[in-house]
Amino acid sequence: MLDCIIIGSGTAGISAALTLQANGKTFLLFGVSTLSEKIAKAELIRNYPGLSNVSGKSFVEALTAQLKEADIAITEEKVAGVYALKDRFTILTQAGNSYESKTVILACGVEAVKQIEGEDSFLGRGVSYCATCDGFLYKGKTIAVVCTSKRLEHEIGYLADFAKKVYLIPLYKGVEIERENIEKILKMPKKIDGKMRVEKLVFSAPAGAEEQELSVDGVFMLRESVSPAALVGGLKTAEGHVLVERDMSTNIKGLFAAGDCTGRPYQYAKAVGEGNIAAHSVSTFLKG
Amino acid sequence: MLDCIIIGSGTAGISAALTLQANGKTFLLFGVSTLSEKIAKAELIRNYPGLSNVSGKSFVEALTAQLKEADIAITEEKVAGVYALKDRFTILTQAGNSYESKTVILACGVEAVKQIEGEDSFLGRGVSYCATCDGFLYKGKTIAVVCTSKRLEHEIGYLADFAKKVYLIPLYKGVEIERENIEKILKMPKKIDGKMRVEKLVFSAPAGAEEQELSVDGVFMLRESVSPAALVGGLKTAEGHVLVERDMSTNIKGLFAAGDCTGRPYQYAKAVGEGNIAAHSVSTFLKG
Repeated sequence: MLDCIIIGSGTAGISAALTLQANGKTFLLFGVSTLSEKIAKAELIRNYPGLSNVSGKSFVEALTAQLKEADIAITEEKVAGVYALKDRFTILTQAGNSYESKTVILACGVEAVKQIEGEDSFLGRGVSYCATCDGFLYKGKTIAVVCTSKRLEHEIGYLADFAKKVYLIPLYKGVEIERENIEKILKMPKKIDGKMRVEKLVFSAPAGAEEQELSVDGVFMLRESVSPAALVGGLKTAEGHVLVERDMSTNIKGLFAAGDCTGRPYQYAKAVGEGNIAAHSVSTFLKG
Repeated sequence: MLDCIIIGSGTAGISAALTLQANGKTFLLFGVSTLSEKIAKAELIRNYPGLSNVSGKSFVEALTAQLKEADIAITEEKVAGVYALKDRFTILTQAGNSYESKTVILACGVEAVKQIEGEDSFLGRGVSYCATCDGFLYKGKTIAVVCTSKRLEHEIGYLADFAKKVYLIPLYKGVEIERENIEKILKMPKKIDGKMRVEKLVFSAPAGAEEQELSVDGVFMLRESVSPAALVGGLKTAEGHVLVERDMSTNIKGLFAAGDCTGRPYQYAKAVGEGNIAAHSVSTFLKG
C-alpha cells in the first residue's frame, strides 16, 4: 500500500511530491502532464522567490524538468472519488481504476466557475461530474452538459454516444464538437430543479417574460477540477474551501489539503508552502 | 508612515517583500545584505519547486538578483525592539534609530542555540541581547558574553571597551578577538543566577565536584537572531515559536509572523508560503 496519494499537479501537489520523494515515501501524483492550465496561462509571476519575473510557461517548464530530475511521474487519471476507510483510503478514478494509500493530500485547486443552484442537492440524483462513470446511465435520454474547457470535449462526445439529446452549455471559446444530437445553448442556467431527481434546467428571463426551462433527465458538470466536497464525502468545507489546521490536516484523519483548495490567497508561494507542510504532516502521521 | 516593516531577510521576509512590492505597499525590509546565513550554508535544496537541486549559495544569488530587479533594498540594522502602540508600531534598532509602520511582519527565523536557564527571567535585569544598547551600563564592571557568530565579534570589542573584565563564551570556531581584559571560557554555562539582578554564571561540574561559578554583573547573549518574545513584548509564543492563525496573524493586532519563527517544518517552501500569506493579510488589514 502506498504511503500517500497526491491529487493535483499544480504547485501545491508538486511541492508535496518533491518533499515526500526527498523523505523516501511511496506515493502517486495524480494530475495532467501539462501540470496546470492556470500556471501555464500566467503571463508574469512577479512574487515567486527564486524565479524573478518568470512567465507561467517557463515556470511549468522548470517544474516539469524538476519532476523528471527527481524521478517523479504523473499519473494521468482523473480522480472520481476518495473514500476514507478504517485504516486506509481508496481512490477511484474515472478510468475505472482503484488505488489504496495510507494518506491523501488534496491539492485539486479551485474551480473558478460558480456552482449552479441545485448542483449540490441533486448530486447523485441526476447531477454528475463524471462522463465516463455515469454516461451509460443516460442511454436514450435527454441530458444537459455544462463544460468549462475545450480539453474536455471528448467527454461530451462520449456522452453524445449514449444520450438521445445533448444540450451543450459551453463555458469556453472555440467549440469544435458537432453532432446531430448536440444542441448548443449559449446562456447559463439559473438552477437545476426537480422533485426526487433532476427534471429540468431553469434559465433567467428578461423582466416581464416567463422563466425558460429545459426538460432534462440529467446534468453533467464537466470541469477541470471537481469541488473537494464532491470528491471526498464528509469533508468539511466553508465557501467551497477545505477547512484545514495549521498542519494542513482536515476533519478526516490522514487526509490533508494544500494550495488553492484551502482558500485565498490563490498564490504559487502559498501553494508550495502548504504542499510542503502537508508532506511533512504525512510523514508525522505515518510515524504515529 | 510606512505600511509595513518586515523583520528578517530570509525566504519568508523576501517572499513578503516581493508581494508587498507587487501590491504597491510602502515598507522596509530589515536584514543583512547576505540575506541569510542559514540559506547560504545549505548544501543542496532538493524540494524547492522551480529550482531543481539548487545549492544554498545559488539560491541566495537568485534571491539577491530578484530583490535588485524588484528594486527592494535591505535596511541593514538589527532590530532591538518592536513596540505596539494604539494605531501603529515603533521599531527601535540597535543603531539607535526608530521607525514607524502600520503593520509588522516578523520573519526573524529561529535561533538554533538553546536558551540558558535564567535568561528569560533576568532579561532587563542584567541579561541583554544588545551590546550597543546596553554596553555603556557596564562601564568598569565584569560581564560575560555568550556569542554565537564570528560576525558579531565587533560587538564583543564594543563591550570590552566599557567593561573592566569580559568572560567570553564563544559558540563558534575561529575566535579572532584578543584583548587584555577578555578571558575565553570554553564551556557553556548551565544557568544565570542572582537575586534581584544577575550575580553569577553557574557551570556544571564533574560528578562529585562542586559546581563552578563566575561572578558577573551582566550577561550579553549575542546571537544572529533574537527570540520573537524578547523582540516583541506581550507576543504569545509556545516552545519558542510565535503562535499564529492560518492568516499568519498573531495575538497582537497588525503584527503578523512568517517562516521558521512560527514553527516547524523549517523549510524554504513553507517560509515563502507564509511570507506570501502574511503580505496578503497586511493588505487586508490596511483596508479594514
